[in-house]
Amino acid sequence: MSRPVTMFTGQWADLPLAELARKCRGFGYDGLELACWGDHFEVDKALDQDDYCAKQRAVLEKNNLQVFAISGHLVGQAVLDNIDARHKAILPSYIWGDGNPAEVNARAAEELKNTVRAAKKLGVNIVNGFTGSSIWPLLYSFPPVSSEMIDDGFDLLAERFNPILDVCGECGVKFALEVHPTEIAFDLYSAERTLEALKYRDEFGFNFDPSHLIWQGVDPVEFIRAFPDRIYHVHMKDAIVKLDGRSGILGSHLNFGDPHRGWEFRSLGRGGVNFEEIIRALNTAGYTGPLSVEWEDGGMDRDHGAKEAVDFVKKLDFEPSQVAFDAAFDKEEQPGQ
Amino acid sequence: MSRPVTMFTGQWADLPLAELARKCRGFGYDGLELACWGDHFEVDKALDQDDYCAKQRAVLEKNNLQVFAISGHLVGQAVLDNIDARHKAILPSYIWGDGNPAEVNARAAEELKNTVRAAKKLGVNIVNGFTGSSIWPLLYSFPPVSSEMIDDGFDLLAERFNPILDVCGECGVKFALEVHPTEIAFDLYSAERTLEALKYRDEFGFNFDPSHLIWQGVDPVEFIRAFPDRIYHVHMKDAIVKLDGRSGILGSHLNFGDPHRGWEFRSLGRGGVNFEEIIRALNTAGYTGPLSVEWEDGGMDRDHGAKEAVDFVKKLDFEPSQVAFDAAFDKEEQPGQ
Amino acid sequence: MSRPVTMFTGQWADLPLAELARKCRGFGYDGLELACWGDHFEVDKALDQDDYCAKQRAVLEKNNLQVFAISGHLVGQAVLDNIDARHKAILPSYIWGDGNPAEVNARAAEELKNTVRAAKKLGVNIVNGFTGSSIWPLLYSFPPVSSEMIDDGFDLLAERFNPILDVCGECGVKFALEVHPTEIAFDLYSAERTLEALKYRDEFGFNFDPSHLIWQGVDPVEFIRAFPDRIYHVHMKDAIVKLDGRSGILGSHLNFGDPHRGWEFRSLGRGGVNFEEIIRALNTAGYTGPLSVEWEDGGMDRDHGAKEAVDFVKKLDFEPSQVAFDAAFDKEEQPGQ
Amino acid sequence: MSRPVTMFTGQWADLPLAELARKCRGFGYDGLELACWGDHFEVDKALDQDDYCAKQRAVLEKNNLQVFAISGHLVGQAVLDNIDARHKAILPSYIWGDGNPAEVNARAAEELKNTVRAAKKLGVNIVNGFTGSSIWPLLYSFPPVSSEMIDDGFDLLAERFNPILDVCGECGVKFALEVHPTEIAFDLYSAERTLEALKYRDEFGFNFDPSHLIWQGVDPVEFIRAFPDRIYHVHMKDAIVKLDGRSGILGSHLNFGDPHRGWEFRSLGRGGVNFEEIIRALNTAGYTGPLSVEWEDGGMDRDHGAKEAVDFVKKLDFEPSQVAFDAAFDKEEQPGQ
Amino acid sequence: MSRPVTMFTGQWADLPLAELARKCRGFGYDGLELACWGDHFEVDKALDQDDYCAKQRAVLEKNNLQVFAISGHLVGQAVLDNIDARHKAILPSYIWGDGNPAEVNARAAEELKNTVRAAKKLGVNIVNGFTGSSIWPLLYSFPPVSSEMIDDGFDLLAERFNPILDVCGECGVKFALEVHPTEIAFDLYSAERTLEALKYRDEFGFNFDPSHLIWQGVDPVEFIRAFPDRIYHVHMKDAIVKLDGRSGILGSHLNFGDPHRGWEFRSLGRGGVNFEEIIRALNTAGYTGPLSVEWEDGGMDRDHGAKEAVDFVKKLDFEPSQVAFDAAFDKEEQPGQ
Amino acid sequence: MSRPVTMFTGQWADLPLAELARKCRGFGYDGLELACWGDHFEVDKALDQDDYCAKQRAVLEKNNLQVFAISGHLVGQAVLDNIDARHKAILPSYIWGDGNPAEVNARAAEELKNTVRAAKKLGVNIVNGFTGSSIWPLLYSFPPVSSEMIDDGFDLLAERFNPILDVCGECGVKFALEVHPTEIAFDLYSAERTLEALKYRDEFGFNFDPSHLIWQGVDPVEFIRAFPDRIYHVHMKDAIVKLDGRSGILGSHLNFGDPHRGWEFRSLGRGGVNFEEIIRALNTAGYTGPLSVEWEDGGMDRDHGAKEAVDFVKKLDFEPSQVAFDAAFDKEEQPGQ
Repeated sequence: MSRPVTMFTGQWADLPLAELARKCRGFGYDGLELACWGDHFEVDKALDQDDYCAKQRAVLEKNNLQVFAISGHLVGQAVLDNIDARHKAILPSYIWGDGNPAEVNARAAEELKNTVRAAKKLGVNIVNGFTGSSIWPLLYSFPPVSSEMIDDGFDLLAERFNPILDVCGECGVKFALEVHPTEIAFDLYSAERTLEALKYRDEFGFNFDPSHLIWQGVDPVEFIRAFPDRIYHVHMKDAIVKLDGRSGILGSHLNFGDPHRGWEFRSLGRGGVNFEEIIRALNTAGYTGPLSVEWEDGGMDRDHGAKEAVDFVKKLDFEPSQVAFDAAFDKEEQPGQ
Repeated sequence: MSRPVTMFTGQWADLPLAELARKCRGFGYDGLELACWGDHFEVDKALDQDDYCAKQRAVLEKNNLQVFAISGHLVGQAVLDNIDARHKAILPSYIWGDGNPAEVNARAAEELKNTVRAAKKLGVNIVNGFTGSSIWPLLYSFPPVSSEMIDDGFDLLAERFNPILDVCGECGVKFALEVHPTEIAFDLYSAERTLEALKYRDEFGFNFDPSHLIWQGVDPVEFIRAFPDRIYHVHMKDAIVKLDGRSGILGSHLNFGDPHRGWEFRSLGRGGVNFEEIIRALNTAGYTGPLSVEWEDGGMDRDHGAKEAVDFVKKLDFEPSQVAFDAAFDKEEQPGQ
Repeated sequence: MSRPVTMFTGQWADLPLAELARKCRGFGYDGLELACWGDHFEVDKALDQDDYCAKQRAVLEKNNLQVFAISGHLVGQAVLDNIDARHKAILPSYIWGDGNPAEVNARAAEELKNTVRAAKKLGVNIVNGFTGSSIWPLLYSFPPVSSEMIDDGFDLLAERFNPILDVCGECGVKFALEVHPTEIAFDLYSAERTLEALKYRDEFGFNFDPSHLIWQGVDPVEFIRAFPDRIYHVHMKDAIVKLDGRSGILGSHLNFGDPHRGWEFRSLGRGGVNFEEIIRALNTAGYTGPLSVEWEDGGMDRDHGAKEAVDFVKKLDFEPSQVAFDAAFDKEEQPGQ
Repeated sequence: MSRPVTMFTGQWADLPLAELARKCRGFGYDGLELACWGDHFEVDKALDQDDYCAKQRAVLEKNNLQVFAISGHLVGQAVLDNIDARHKAILPSYIWGDGNPAEVNARAAEELKNTVRAAKKLGVNIVNGFTGSSIWPLLYSFPPVSSEMIDDGFDLLAERFNPILDVCGECGVKFALEVHPTEIAFDLYSAERTLEALKYRDEFGFNFDPSHLIWQGVDPVEFIRAFPDRIYHVHMKDAIVKLDGRSGILGSHLNFGDPHRGWEFRSLGRGGVNFEEIIRALNTAGYTGPLSVEWEDGGMDRDHGAKEAVDFVKKLDFEPSQVAFDAAFDKEEQPGQ
Repeated sequence: MSRPVTMFTGQWADLPLAELARKCRGFGYDGLELACWGDHFEVDKALDQDDYCAKQRAVLEKNNLQVFAISGHLVGQAVLDNIDARHKAILPSYIWGDGNPAEVNARAAEELKNTVRAAKKLGVNIVNGFTGSSIWPLLYSFPPVSSEMIDDGFDLLAERFNPILDVCGECGVKFALEVHPTEIAFDLYSAERTLEALKYRDEFGFNFDPSHLIWQGVDPVEFIRAFPDRIYHVHMKDAIVKLDGRSGILGSHLNFGDPHRGWEFRSLGRGGVNFEEIIRALNTAGYTGPLSVEWEDGGMDRDHGAKEAVDFVKKLDFEPSQVAFDAAFDKEEQPGQ
Repeated sequence: MSRPVTMFTGQWADLPLAELARKCRGFGYDGLELACWGDHFEVDKALDQDDYCAKQRAVLEKNNLQVFAISGHLVGQAVLDNIDARHKAILPSYIWGDGNPAEVNARAAEELKNTVRAAKKLGVNIVNGFTGSSIWPLLYSFPPVSSEMIDDGFDLLAERFNPILDVCGECGVKFALEVHPTEIAFDLYSAERTLEALKYRDEFGFNFDPSHLIWQGVDPVEFIRAFPDRIYHVHMKDAIVKLDGRSGILGSHLNFGDPHRGWEFRSLGRGGVNFEEIIRALNTAGYTGPLSVEWEDGGMDRDHGAKEAVDFVKKLDFEPSQVAFDAAFDKEEQPGQ
């Protein structure tokens, strides 16, 4: 049996869950990966209101949709980031408060713990999310960045995430970092270092998403091979590199959707990600969870895209072989014997 | 006649100028591009001591070396950057002072004006350098970066550099920005926007350096074509992209020289820059200034490299054609007629 | 709403319009781009017979087909070409007459004016077509071709086409040149020069067709970017380059369909044109007209191909996005607020 | 009319023919290529039992399936191979006997003659198969292999296969070698030499299979061009090359399906074979026989694959053009004339 | 011993031979391939003046230069071409006369015969040259070109060149066509057809020049493999393809040297020709004649280029192996035995 | 200081050592890697004659040549191979004897032990060589090869080589297998398995040779990265892949030097090996031994090649950097402070 195909609701937070669920069922999705923003899954209500989780589940069940994971990307971003004006726009007001950076960091960390607890209450065991990073602004090593400055960034990760992962341990929930620019891990080697900084705790793994890797030159298949037992969740998202000698891979301070950018996200199957090889690598790694479409394409109507994406994934995915091939040649196995 | 080949002294600031000049003559260089750090060209002394410029020139002349440009990269970086601990290590103590960010910015801007004045005193009309950037940390647009935030960065450029360029105008000196990550212009489109923000003042152009462009996917030849009349100086520096499916183009927080990095600098001719096409594009653009070797290769002995670099450039460069080709076919032009 | 998909009838002129319209409706087309040869759209009858246009429209309407453009490629070819025996086979006898070259040129120019007038009568505002070229035989600059000889070709274009474009102006019709070998414009730079020779008159633009560009090495997306406001009509036609070391890009005087040729036309989706990027570039350029399939594939049954082509285009085309992406992240826009 | 699509039954010999035929009809196949192992087509019974062929045909007809060829790969392998333990597992016990190598070779050659006779009895005129090779172990020329040693291998081919081809001649049946590693012909040049060794006898040609060619670097289209009149049967089988700098093309003694292998077989359309060009080359060569799917993919469920393969081939194949393209331009051919 | 390296003098006809010979010796050439224009080798004088050949040879010998071939490209061009104004500039006035096309063709054919006779007198047995082509203007098959039109072009070749080749036969001289656009043969397949039209007369072969092939997509090595016994002379000339999405392979009516062109000629070693493989293919074909540098590079000083070209060829060329490699492994051949 | 450049004498065994040494000194080599065949280094004499090693060393010293390693490739091949007629030509008669396979294997193993002892006597601590392989003929897994058959091959390696490695341990000598087709290790994964089968004994490592890897698709740099502490010796040998759609990577039973082969060996710098990256990888791995040219090029004169090879390596190799780059930016390190 093929894997369930879900829709990550993060890019649809302007729609109420009830409406989105109806749409997604119509498109052909098997489930939703609920974002913890908009009214899709509200952590405070989940903890405060005894029937909240049941009500949200009811909306899904009415549409015959499953849920395997919730996502706390935005609040996670505020755990390690150096806080500035950009964060105000993406955080609930009770986290932002007066915007004092250290206090925002602290409140965000508490909220992420609560997100884990809320996941348990909803009955899912994966929280996807971001971590932010205090050292992302040091990306290009000029003015010269010392090794100690980089070490500090990973030490801060350990200091702030170990308490969160303790809550994960208590709740039987895993945290799956989406490896992504601006996070503590943004490519294969920084992902290695991240696991090491957290001493390979079992509560911490990855929400694999190839779209953030290919434009950096990282082969998504190599990523899966490097961490086969840490793929806790999968985002199906496409991207394309369009370097033409004038555009640059760093994006030129241009918005997504600007045709001069060096790369951008794409509706599934219209970009450069080789999903065929990814499915096979996931088969080899033994991943049996959902394939969750994260749809983003600055040049296409969203509904059109969501429909073609689920069709694409369903056609692509397949069951691994159960039979060894040579069996058919071996005369012992043949009916004529 | 081919162009003069100079050595940029920035990576040799641990050596006294007298020793370096002797070495470079031995390697076969025609001149030096003097860095304004170490004892190569000290701006404060140039302005304070009447004979300083003559003494520095004497060191060069003794070794039969010319000078066409001086370089104020490090102090330029501090004009727009958000100042932090990294800047202390690269600034003279009289610029750093107590490290108060706004005051460091202000003192750096004054020093850059003085650098322009010192250039005039030395008798050169190009100051190469960096600008820094207040918006570089916003490189990847997450958390979402508003257009206004980017606009602010370019407005700040105009505010702080116009007074510096006024001094350039007074002195008959041009400022040549090396387009480079962490600067206000780091690729072709951000370079376009930079010129626009400064209203295309003639005092501002570029120190063309292909090594910072190729790993971003920007074709150095396209850069020359885009700004043929703004190429005020040229750095000959090589780099290589070594993406192997595991390494990433953003560098993974790994040091230069680490074999796992996705790209690094290289001794000339051992990397991926197509210098052949660059020479031809410079010919088309009419650039007649020096070709200045900026040598950096974390894997090779420095003296070995400086020698092979000058040989490489001298073999590569050539004079443009003076004769129209068809002339030889035209019987009117032939001696037998 | 996606763009209408039409069929260019030029390669089906052996079938009567009534039969072809029935077929095309069956295949799934939304309309036809009528060729001015065969009985598809006869210019002389359109001007002479008051009800001709209505009758042709009736054939289309009966099959629920629209019409946005007519095409005068063949007669246009005779406006600038040096006339020889090949033109007799493609021109109506009243244009060819006794074949005197100068008179054929003159009659062809008049016929093109009439084609414009007939378009107005039919109620469409685009005439696609060719121009021919007096300088195409000078393609390869040997024996040496002087600049004056090339100038002459473009001067002749202005001389002969300005009167035709005057008629366009009177009729509210635009002429769309299909950039193509043997025409005055056959690639990007010759297209630039063509617009310049006609002083960028608004009545003159292009019928964009990628199949004639890719084998020359011209990127169709760059063509659209170069002339975004001159894309007056679009042909969807595919081609493939099959250079194997023995075949040549110039075609070796071999017929299309010969497997030794270096390139050939292909049924849509089976060649090398990247239609995905073309659709996005057309979206950026704001083109909202029809996508007109020009089907040609020497190796495939014509009906089979026409059917797969319309399916291909309909699956490919999509509506541009109406929503800015970051909206969903912004808590102000979310229903839970 | 497109070509019939058949399934090669070799990899399904663990299923009885009746069950397999039912399945294949359900998938959408037009016929079967019967393997001479399992109970699909038993040579001894075909010759001994008067009604055997009729019974097998009845199974097919009940499912509306055709048959164009039978396949004797396994017994063919034993004609030229140096016999060892591996052959015991793939040969019927009456061929293996006591395993004396020379006698196994002799019995295999007789069995192949009988296979030809049985084909005639079944009413098909193609026997696909292998030849084995006495010189395959000398593949890499170290320790140095003399030319005489290679000559001996081809002489042995002539010696052992000419009598088999004599039987082909008597029966009106052709033998189609599947060019494949471990056979006397495994690429284009060894195929040339094979034809030469057999003096281009008409009874001997090829069962074209691209999957064994691409990983060797041989272009399947070049193979068809080299031997257009020797393509007696076609296998549609896909393969992929996955060299990543660590894997090797020789397979590292790793099993198929091991993700570290440098290449492997793939379900049709999910590998690297360019079937589009193959269909066109077969059209040019005039091949009108069946397209026989040989399905093998160590990473996919077999039933899922067999279904998608037949869909893939049916969508891909098309009828060659019957109309010359220029006809539509020629006014003589047009209805309006 | 390596092959002699000569300079083709065609692009230096503005210099008197005496001066050019002195220069070329200084650059390091072993000989000259004399152009039959300028005062390098004048056919009329060679036939009229008894001591002309001796005098020209004396100029060469004084500079220690050899001569293996003379070149009649320009007059050859006028044998088959449709004559127009361009030919006047490249022909001697006694060939041009009053410019009547048919008479120019006739006089050019006679002059080519005389060139052959003059070659014999000079003591060389190769005349390189062009043929022109009456069908080159029909290059792109639109308006539709009939097969008969192409046939006519090759028939004309036979009609006009057979008498010239008869003179070759009488004189013991061979004519070597430089396969080149605007000639009857311009790529591999048209070269095949040319040989066929001349019934493979031994007097007719090719002056192999890779620079005209690579931009067409023809692999020069495949050309040598196709006609190993017809390589009568070799031009060493480099070219580069610079398609960037804007430039086109047909050249856009732009002059050589314009940076927007899609391809251009290059000084040897600075373009895209793989001379390494060409040398090896010439070794395999058994070609032992001179390697004649045809130097053309619109972007480089001519003297600089001529010098680097001869150095390049001398470093590149090498003697084929005389020893079978395995000999050293065979203990019979070893001194210790 | 750069590494010494030596010549592997294996391909020159037809010359007496005295002559070869003189030649190599003339070419510019620093030393020789002595083959244990011909009269270069005779194991039996080395053990029997007390002054033999001194005499061989004297020949080298007279020519100012060093020696770092001896090579026992041929006898090593016979340790694991299934012995056949090919081995007779490469083995000394006292090893071949009557050619009984098992006894040849046994004598070869003893000779390899003696080679180790002779190396000690000569005063070198590296013996390069081959192992042969009993399972190489099973390379392509058809007829199906069981895992047990592969296991047997590696078990036999352990059984036969552990006693040889014991002698290595006693003598302080290491055995360096040249990873190569027909050996037990021929690519990266089989090399991994080889080390594992020998339980990672320190006496066993590799003679790194990139020419055997690239045509298999294995990246030589990845090989060095995989086994940085097992690179005991280095062969500098080039190869080229020339797949053209007709040639195959398996070589088509064609001899080296045949232009139709899919790959072949090449003189250094004329093939496809990226030696630049190899030198850097060796620097990273800390390899400080000799770079030993193994010269083989079926298309070039041997003396010509040996000379250009040593020049190539000397120009390529360089000393790693001793200075951290940022030092020059740090004002603490600068003389002006």
